Amino acid sequence: MGADTGADPGTVSVGAYLARRLEQLGLRHLFGLPGDFNLALLDELLGAGGLRWIGSSNELNAGYCADGHARLRRGPAALVTTFGVGELSAVNALAGSRAEDVPVVHVVGLPPTRAMADGALLHHSLADGDFGRFVRVAAEVTACAVVVRAQGAGTSVDQALMTAVGSSQPVYLGIPSDVATARVSAAPLSRPLPVLRSDAGSAEEFRRALADFLGDSPEVTLLAGPRLHRRRLEHLVRALAAQNGVRVATQSASKAMLDESHPATLGVYAGRFTRDPATRRRVDEASPLVLAGVVLTDFLTGSFTHAFDPERAVDLQLDHARIAGQAFYGLYLEESLRILEEVLEARSPRPAPLPRQDVAPPARHVPADPDGPLTHADLWPLLQQWLLPGTLLVAEAGTSFYGALEVVLPDGCDLLGQPVWSSIGYTLPATLGAMLAAPGRETVLVIGDGSAQLTVQELGRLLSLGLTPTVLLVNNSGYTVERAIRSPEAPYQDVVEWDWTKLPAALGAPHVPVHRASTPADLVEVLAKVRADPDHAAFVELVLPRDDAPESLLQLARSIR
Amino acid sequence: MGADTGADPGTVSVGAYLARRLEQLGLRHLFGLPGDFNLALLDELLGAGGLRWIGSSNELNAGYCADGHARLRRGPAALVTTFGVGELSAVNALAGSRAEDVPVVHVVGLPPTRAMADGALLHHSLADGDFGRFVRVAAEVTACAVVVRAQGAGTSVDQALMTAVGSSQPVYLGIPSDVATARVSAAPLSRPLPVLRSDAGSAEEFRRALADFLGDSPEVTLLAGPRLHRRRLEHLVRALAAQNGVRVATQSASKAMLDESHPATLGVYAGRFTRDPATRRRVDEASPLVLAGVVLTDFLTGSFTHAFDPERAVDLQLDHARIAGQAFYGLYLEESLRILEEVLEARSPRPAPLPRQDVAPPARHVPADPDGPLTHADLWPLLQQWLLPGTLLVAEAGTSFYGALEVVLPDGCDLLGQPVWSSIGYTLPATLGAMLAAPGRETVLVIGDGSAQLTVQELGRLLSLGLTPTVLLVNNSGYTVERAIRSPEAPYQDVVEWDWTKLPAALGAPHVPVHRASTPADLVEVLAKVRADPDHAAFVELVLPRDDAPESLLQLARSIR
Repeated sequence: MGADTGADPGTVSVGAYLARRLEQLGLRHLFGLPGDFNLALLDELLGAGGLRWIGSSNELNAGYCADGHARLRRGPAALVTTFGVGELSAVNALAGSRAEDVPVVHVVGLPPTRAMADGALLHHSLADGDFGRFVRVAAEVTACAVVVRAQGAGTSVDQALMTAVGSSQPVYLGIPSDVATARVSAAPLSRPLPVLRSDAGSAEEFRRALADFLGDSPEVTLLAGPRLHRRRLEHLVRALAAQNGVRVATQSASKAMLDESHPATLGVYAGRFTRDPATRRRVDEASPLVLAGVVLTDFLTGSFTHAFDPERAVDLQLDHARIAGQAFYGLYLEESLRILEEVLEARSPRPAPLPRQDVAPPARHVPADPDGPLTHADLWPLLQQWLLPGTLLVAEAGTSFYGALEVVLPDGCDLLGQPVWSSIGYTLPATLGAMLAAPGRETVLVIGDGSAQLTVQELGRLLSLGLTPTVLLVNNSGYTVERAIRSPEAPYQDVVEWDWTKLPAALGAPHVPVHRASTPADLVEVLAKVRADPDHAAFVELVLPRDDAPESLLQLARSIR
Repeated sequence: MGADTGADPGTVSVGAYLARRLEQLGLRHLFGLPGDFNLALLDELLGAGGLRWIGSSNELNAGYCADGHARLRRGPAALVTTFGVGELSAVNALAGSRAEDVPVVHVVGLPPTRAMADGALLHHSLADGDFGRFVRVAAEVTACAVVVRAQGAGTSVDQALMTAVGSSQPVYLGIPSDVATARVSAAPLSRPLPVLRSDAGSAEEFRRALADFLGDSPEVTLLAGPRLHRRRLEHLVRALAAQNGVRVATQSASKAMLDESHPATLGVYAGRFTRDPATRRRVDEASPLVLAGVVLTDFLTGSFTHAFDPERAVDLQLDHARIAGQAFYGLYLEESLRILEEVLEARSPRPAPLPRQDVAPPARHVPADPDGPLTHADLWPLLQQWLLPGTLLVAEAGTSFYGALEVVLPDGCDLLGQPVWSSIGYTLPATLGAMLAAPGRETVLVIGDGSAQLTVQELGRLLSLGLTPTVLLVNNSGYTVERAIRSPEAPYQDVVEWDWTKLPAALGAPHVPVHRASTPADLVEVLAKVRADPDHAAFVELVLPRDDAPESLLQLARSIR
């Protein structure tokens, strides 16, 4: 900490205090961009040496990086931008974090406290003396938005971080440049921030009510939602699935949370978009039904065609639970899920094992016309048999995410997408952030051309940080998902035609092998080449017909119409 | 208008109504991106055939395009995005429009009225049922933010457009998808929206007070600011400059509003950043001093070192005027400036002509070491003697804008930059929008590598729309302006090194000649080649040393420190 020299050793700068707290929460990276009003802050944050700077080309991309990082960390990530021009470009990313329960800490370097109090007509402001505008913007898309003052700075920082962790939502910390270097007591740092602890009374009442409610049901159906990922509770889902009489469905946003070859798995449930009618029926008619970390938005419920009633189910949410509508507050998801496991374990007599699901390995796919145009009908089955167990598959909103939903994933795979917020362009930077949180993990990104154009800058950094993703760029000449919804020939559906295979070299990654596939035969050959060279990233342009789309996406488009 | 078939001919859809109003205001282009919730709206807007769609790769870029378009149109421009994921990415651009008085009409396609009223958990929302969040965000960065209802839709549209024109600020029009196609009376369209008309009483009082205040001063000093551009009042500045006894200084944001060879010009005034000490003294000590459309932010006043007192001057603003602190409301800049001209014209006896300014043409620049590294010391003088009269010079915040301030521009040139909001990356898309508003005009963009990385997607479209800009990409390995302020060696100052000369072809413009210059001799040769090929766009990478910067930027950096 450069600024520490000569200062009271019992104190640290506010920037260093924040850095220490972030490190205590397990963070090792900071995402963002520099700007006039955050340089002193950045020097304090990075001065302690525990956080590595990962710059981005712009603030929206940086926000997506941080979001992807937090998702794979299963914990908070941090983003640093500058006042006005920086922070506002990240608003869309923060809103996505809020919509999908991702705890991104947005740290913004503000002008000096005195200049703001005076209403000075500074650059990067609206030149109207009102310095509260952008904090009010942030308040709309975060769980809390605060401007830190020198007085009480440590407490402000601590409370914001506890809010981020407790609510699993983004928070905003505005730090004026003078406050960034102001000294505060280091004493609170000797105790890490407390972990979430549920209310003991609530937990006990919930345990009794749950035991009563479940009784001796021979069969319990669990719908496992994406909020379980945020709390890193996948192991408890596996423990539940190992119990007699338990079946587990997931949502599309938590696909493969339980291995898709597991005998207890029902696959993905999404109302009338559910692929397997038996799965749809089993969830809709389940009694008892347990919802765990579930999100009931339009895309996740087949446009609200789920037939179960959450008010008649057990509903475990991030910070409370309900049983048939009765609420138990102060009960975190970790605790309620653990109690569920214990209650099921304690059932006497133990229910009989359920008949094993018929999880036959998918048949080997043989394209009908290996030298015809590559279509989604061949793309996804060919990808399916190429994917390795344990892969992180990142799939962009649109044809990619809905194609990925049709894949039966090998064991240990994760699907990362953004099906609630659905902001196109998200996955390219998110892959970068995710890979830094899961080093060494096989990672495959599938993204369309229209989407990739929004955030393409980060391709260069993704390919040149020493990471080894496989990037599959689906070039289908524009916004195919929007064409499927309406007016496919309208001029607004077109994008500029780029020469994708030239991009990696132009963006600073000339060492990355580049491939192109426009037939199923090409694809098979290219995928084999990529597999044979695991030490490098790979960039593959997949040329698909303009209006071709996975069946599930066409179904979704019809529902939006 | 596709939806008109069979409908009451006395009615139009709300989307078509808005399109007609925009056309009446002189608009011929719509900027933006499609999305789930604006497709029906886009079909209505474009169906009438009077507006041409100019897509962008992302919404921030689209917002910058619209802003640049409005600046060169000297009137409103329109931007269309979709709910949540689209509109929020444009917030930074809209804030820039607000900070610099640019009337961008942001039209956002919202979910159906009924779904919002029900608080449905839709994708692109925060899944909390609150559909007011993003309108409240917009309200912080626009002059007005409204959600249009079917009932009274025409009036809502009209009022928002009149606010944009009257205040010269951005406005937000949220249009639910059902409202976009709802029918409203076409009758109001027969009368175009009224133009601004000043209050006659206010104007008369102002005229008398101004005549008293100016008396028979032999010398009047006018400081002409950027708000004059917004009202297209440059011709009145020229008329004033032609009068005996009038001298005209401009601000950096309105540099060359009066030709820099004009005998009445004092050049750019910016407090202690003023290049010519005589200009600084003349403005600071002027009596009487007339401020017209002036903005007094930090960068425009040499960090508030202007020594004149606006409360003792004549201050003509967009919608009011002051004389020595006394306010005249309801008086628009058009009218107050015209009255100033008449009052000066009517002075008797007429003042004597002022001694002519010594505006020697700049001496021909000869680089000291033509084969040494290219530096700013050579770049700007060489550019100066290459620029043609009438050129639109667009200069990005940072070394480019401050370098451009050191150039004496040929007659008829305009400098386009963003010195108040100063959001890096702005000028690349803004150049596209500006060129569509000034077809056939010679246009030169100068932008640094760090800045260009933020918005580089639009380079492909800029170079492939049939426009013929000269793009000068200053490659100086990162954020040189931030390095000048603090911690030049910090890792956050670096960017990924791109191979810039490969980019135009990768981004869809393989036909555009690409050049590279790393010495003054290279530059002279490349500029000659560009001049010899006026029918094509050109892309030139200029390689400059990492820490080299124009003197005026170093001065600014010291003031920020």
